[in-house]
Amino acid sequence: MPATDTVRIPLPDDRAYDIRIGSGLLDEPASWQGLPKAAAAVIVSNETVAPLYAERLRERLRSVYARVDIVVLPDGEAHKDWASLNRIFDHLLGQALDRKTVLFALGGGVIGDMTGFAAAVYMRGVPFVQVPTTLLAQVDSSVGGKTAINHPLGKNMLGAFYQPERVIADLDTLDSLPDRELRAGLAEVIKYGPIADAGFLCWIEDNLDALLARDKAVLGYAVRRSCEIKAEVVGQDEKEQGLRAILNFGHTIGHAIESGMGYGKWLHGEAVACGMVLAADLSRRSGLVPDGFVERLRALVERAGLPTAPPKLGIERYLTLMRVDKKAEAGAIRFVLIEGLGRAGLHAVPDARIAETLAAHGAA
Amino acid sequence: MPATDTVRIPLPDDRAYDIRIGSGLLDEPASWQGLPKAAAAVIVSNETVAPLYAERLRERLRSVYARVDIVVLPDGEAHKDWASLNRIFDHLLGQALDRKTVLFALGGGVIGDMTGFAAAVYMRGVPFVQVPTTLLAQVDSSVGGKTAINHPLGKNMLGAFYQPERVIADLDTLDSLPDRELRAGLAEVIKYGPIADAGFLCWIEDNLDALLARDKAVLGYAVRRSCEIKAEVVGQDEKEQGLRAILNFGHTIGHAIESGMGYGKWLHGEAVACGMVLAADLSRRSGLVPDGFVERLRALVERAGLPTAPPKLGIERYLTLMRVDKKAEAGAIRFVLIEGLGRAGLHAVPDARIAETLAAHGAA
Repeated sequence: MPATDTVRIPLPDDRAYDIRIGSGLLDEPASWQGLPKAAAAVIVSNETVAPLYAERLRERLRSVYARVDIVVLPDGEAHKDWASLNRIFDHLLGQALDRKTVLFALGGGVIGDMTGFAAAVYMRGVPFVQVPTTLLAQVDSSVGGKTAINHPLGKNMLGAFYQPERVIADLDTLDSLPDRELRAGLAEVIKYGPIADAGFLCWIEDNLDALLARDKAVLGYAVRRSCEIKAEVVGQDEKEQGLRAILNFGHTIGHAIESGMGYGKWLHGEAVACGMVLAADLSRRSGLVPDGFVERLRALVERAGLPTAPPKLGIERYLTLMRVDKKAEAGAIRFVLIEGLGRAGLHAVPDARIAETLAAHGAA
Repeated sequence: MPATDTVRIPLPDDRAYDIRIGSGLLDEPASWQGLPKAAAAVIVSNETVAPLYAERLRERLRSVYARVDIVVLPDGEAHKDWASLNRIFDHLLGQALDRKTVLFALGGGVIGDMTGFAAAVYMRGVPFVQVPTTLLAQVDSSVGGKTAINHPLGKNMLGAFYQPERVIADLDTLDSLPDRELRAGLAEVIKYGPIADAGFLCWIEDNLDALLARDKAVLGYAVRRSCEIKAEVVGQDEKEQGLRAILNFGHTIGHAIESGMGYGKWLHGEAVACGMVLAADLSRRSGLVPDGFVERLRALVERAGLPTAPPKLGIERYLTLMRVDKKAEAGAIRFVLIEGLGRAGLHAVPDARIAETLAAHGAA
């Protein structure tokens, strides 16, 4: 069993925090010590994850908090909305829980984003802890303080930058992850290679089979290295004034796919995987990377069992969906493009080139 | 006509901002210069205020922003909810307005709180400007960065600390204010005396008739002095870790009245006025102030035409409503009590003493 790794997110004003990565962390008393004191804790989870881990977490938290409640939300991206968020508030206010109450996000990216946003706005801010149980949440969404819900007109459009107190990534919880979700999580792992670390891209290519076979040591390294890269980026640019945008490689088209297909049809990681292939091709068409890079990334995405061809939503619909992307400015759609292996940046791309790329990949 | 006064809110990390107070500021080009650049601005107002000032503000902003939209919400505290907030988001996303878009809150406290909260969460934060048109908003709610909406189970329960770029308090907009709202605003002016400045309390007593007669110079001083006191408190404790709570003198019972009666029945200032009289009596019953102080404050509140007796909601109902107050902790209701003229602090008060005070004032 691998030892516990700790990655620290360096942030000013007392907001720095640790990501702990390892096996058996859920049952490790140290995971829950040293958190903010409070009369009550509330575990927020979903219908799929709660039956697996919520009672175990509650037992552990009972040694720290006099009262531990559990709020169970419906599962899936389609429920990442105001109605679900309000179920958390209804519980907190219905039970008159005060503004020291600590929230625990037990689940994947949807639960983490919603619980974090609930913590950001309940009484203008209560502490929260991320307990990610999916690969995607462990390598990406639980780290860095982006919280949000979806709006019918756009993904993650309403939210806050709000940092957790701690992230506890228990690798054992990945045992219960459906294969499709494991693969979706790998999309975000793959992402870190092209944008920040050419060597890590090679390592993923070499270890993809072990990752798919859920080798715990290999998964542990993938989670740690992903978190290290994210920590470095977020530490430099917490509120996405510039650099942090590179973490959105593949996300402009990815979000359009998720929103255009209806939230939940494609998993977030699947949409991002396909978005990365198209953004790589946009980088090539912008003269930033050689032909070979697009094919290399496409091949890796395919080997991971992830989609490489976009759904046929029509070019105009894609452009409309992408114009509400948070990175868009004054009507121009902006993409994270690869500027060379391990280096990325934000680029305004003319509509004609976007349309041509979408068409070449069969999106029309 | 009085000259423009400027009060600065001192905050770290580039978040300091100015409150400009004076006559004619709405039409003063300098009011709108030096704000964040953007392709679009959106004025958020309500059905009452928009017909009076929205087009004038739009004309002024057109020299700065290529596009200026107006979103009109229903008027009143009863509409300070998610549904109204979402109308702002529907407009912003429906028009694909980007994350540089600047929001302008044109109206009273409800519009300011909702627009500020919308700005805090739209795409995780866009800039906003407060243009308060009520006395209450000019002396209190537009200043200090508290934003929120109500939840059926409690007032201002969902929100964020999010600072505006600037506050433009045009005293001329008070000309259109109904008398009842002017009086409600005076409640928050009166508040600053007991909690922070005994001399200001005397000044208010001496100038109350001129304030009620809307003497512009006297109103201007009341707004400026109120903002100075608030600036000093907020500068020391932006996120209400301690000191800032004193600004909530009268608000624990006040919020219970508003929530218990149904939002909008009592104006916020009316509820706070009554809450201050009861909190003064709680201070006396706690041995902190002499008998004379309660009578002095009651007399001033009464002269201002504000209510001094609480509605008969029943003691138990009051206690239940106050237990969800944001200042409550581990089940204990906490009040801002006066500790001597011009000095206040947060105190946990036993339920029995609260009940006895409520009963003495006819709340049963």
